[in-house]
Amino acid sequence: MYLSTFLFQGKQTYGFLTDCQNFVVDVLAAETYTFSETRLPAALLNAIGCREAVDRLYELHDKFHEKGNHPFVIPVSEIVLQAPIPNPKRNIFCLGINYREHAYEFRQTKDEAKAVPKYPIVFSKATTTVIGPGQQINSHPEITKELDYEAELAIIIGKEGTNIGKEEAYEYIFGYTMINDVTARDLQRRDAQWLLSKSLDTFCPMGPCLVTSDEISTPVKLNIQSRVNGEIRQNSNTEYLIFDIPTIIQTVSTGITLKPGDIIATGTPSGVGMGFQPPRFLKSGDVVEVEIEKLGVLKNIVL
Amino acid sequence: MYLSTFLFQGKQTYGFLTDCQNFVVDVLAAETYTFSETRLPAALLNAIGCREAVDRLYELHDKFHEKGNHPFVIPVSEIVLQAPIPNPKRNIFCLGINYREHAYEFRQTKDEAKAVPKYPIVFSKATTTVIGPGQQINSHPEITKELDYEAELAIIIGKEGTNIGKEEAYEYIFGYTMINDVTARDLQRRDAQWLLSKSLDTFCPMGPCLVTSDEISTPVKLNIQSRVNGEIRQNSNTEYLIFDIPTIIQTVSTGITLKPGDIIATGTPSGVGMGFQPPRFLKSGDVVEVEIEKLGVLKNIVL
Repeated sequence: MYLSTFLFQGKQTYGFLTDCQNFVVDVLAAETYTFSETRLPAALLNAIGCREAVDRLYELHDKFHEKGNHPFVIPVSEIVLQAPIPNPKRNIFCLGINYREHAYEFRQTKDEAKAVPKYPIVFSKATTTVIGPGQQINSHPEITKELDYEAELAIIIGKEGTNIGKEEAYEYIFGYTMINDVTARDLQRRDAQWLLSKSLDTFCPMGPCLVTSDEISTPVKLNIQSRVNGEIRQNSNTEYLIFDIPTIIQTVSTGITLKPGDIIATGTPSGVGMGFQPPRFLKSGDVVEVEIEKLGVLKNIVL
Repeated sequence: MYLSTFLFQGKQTYGFLTDCQNFVVDVLAAETYTFSETRLPAALLNAIGCREAVDRLYELHDKFHEKGNHPFVIPVSEIVLQAPIPNPKRNIFCLGINYREHAYEFRQTKDEAKAVPKYPIVFSKATTTVIGPGQQINSHPEITKELDYEAELAIIIGKEGTNIGKEEAYEYIFGYTMINDVTARDLQRRDAQWLLSKSLDTFCPMGPCLVTSDEISTPVKLNIQSRVNGEIRQNSNTEYLIFDIPTIIQTVSTGITLKPGDIIATGTPSGVGMGFQPPRFLKSGDVVEVEIEKLGVLKNIVL
């Protein structure tokens, strides 16, 4: 399923895309129409990890994935997509320096020992950073002169777990989305801890969909790209992660209980603005796109 | 008001302490008893930032702070205190290295330029770390051999704000509590980013109360102490913060929207386990107490 959270007639609801993503089924309306008893919570986030709700989503998907003529099957032109999880329950876990070529550009050395981390680097982004596809990235000109983009595959956790082993890691994944891990490089250089430089408001475009794990074969090998004003900047494949998805889940869950709806961004490949000489940071009016095979395109404009 | 979240007869509720903290008024029960119309949300966290709810809390406090003979005035012996905010809405913001003597012990140098940060250092702790007073700190023996304590004053934000100026910073504070910023030092040394080493389950004892800001005069100068098995380890005063409370709020809110219920821990003074030679880390069975003048004692045992 390609799940999305969206506004329809000014109200937030969620559903799945159908008919080559030209239509969306409002599952809350579809459920009321179909069943006498309702099980779906008001927000997609609260359906994740709830067995009854997820079963209901698949039930509705089976019934309505071939677009019928129903009032709850809505042309995408009539909705406004939001981030699939507009209000995460806690900060987004993020992997730092998790593609080899990006490690070289970030550390400004090709010395393997100096550039490539021995252990996964994990930091967080504040929840207030999240914006949806099409929403504007605030360039915060008073705060940063070095606004940068980072295309990333993000994992959405589907069930609670602690000390999750690599061999069972994929079972804990509900699905995938994309994020743009927008970063203020000057603040990042100033602060040894990356929380603030990664957490300015609007610094986490997310979406356009949450693609359930049954749509993506494992191990996950997906082309990943970013473009600025149509020009390809990052171009890699998630198979080149230094620490792969099972290792990431094992690491983050070591002694730390992961919960349904937790978001883990897996890191960005080379080609970020700071990697160019001279650097090519984002400026007002730039159009930034993140694209991952099978996950769609996440497009935002810099304000 | 001294607000607390607690279990009474197995159910979670909240209220304020009265009569030298020997009794607690269950405000949800008191409200139902007193008013025909109820305004209080089910959790203390959701009352913060809600004007109507806060007004109601003060109304009930005026009415019942002198213990009367009511079923909702409960001896503290009959309740189990929880963290005042057992389930924060996002990660806890934390200041690192924010007392001068602690900077020396942490950096293992008295060289001012090397030890004392020029800008506030801010990281986060995951929400799943929070435990209440009296609950056990898991020593995670499989994960760390260097379990350490950090006594800290924590600020609870009371209203939404971005780019908050120093001169208005105190207006954004709803109240104060204490946390023990438990840290796995070996992981902290391994990881340049501190999220994981600070976020193991149970690594954020919090409480025992949330003391509203009207109880604490500003600038905040409170004695702060930690004890392990009764022995004083940390002993300072919050007036010695390198970056004071207004500066902290200004820094964290720069481009980042703070929300009611956000928690900001202000850093720890010298005397942590790693500061001793040889280091004195926590071990199973140790009793750790954090005490801050006017805020009470936060006591936990290491499992």
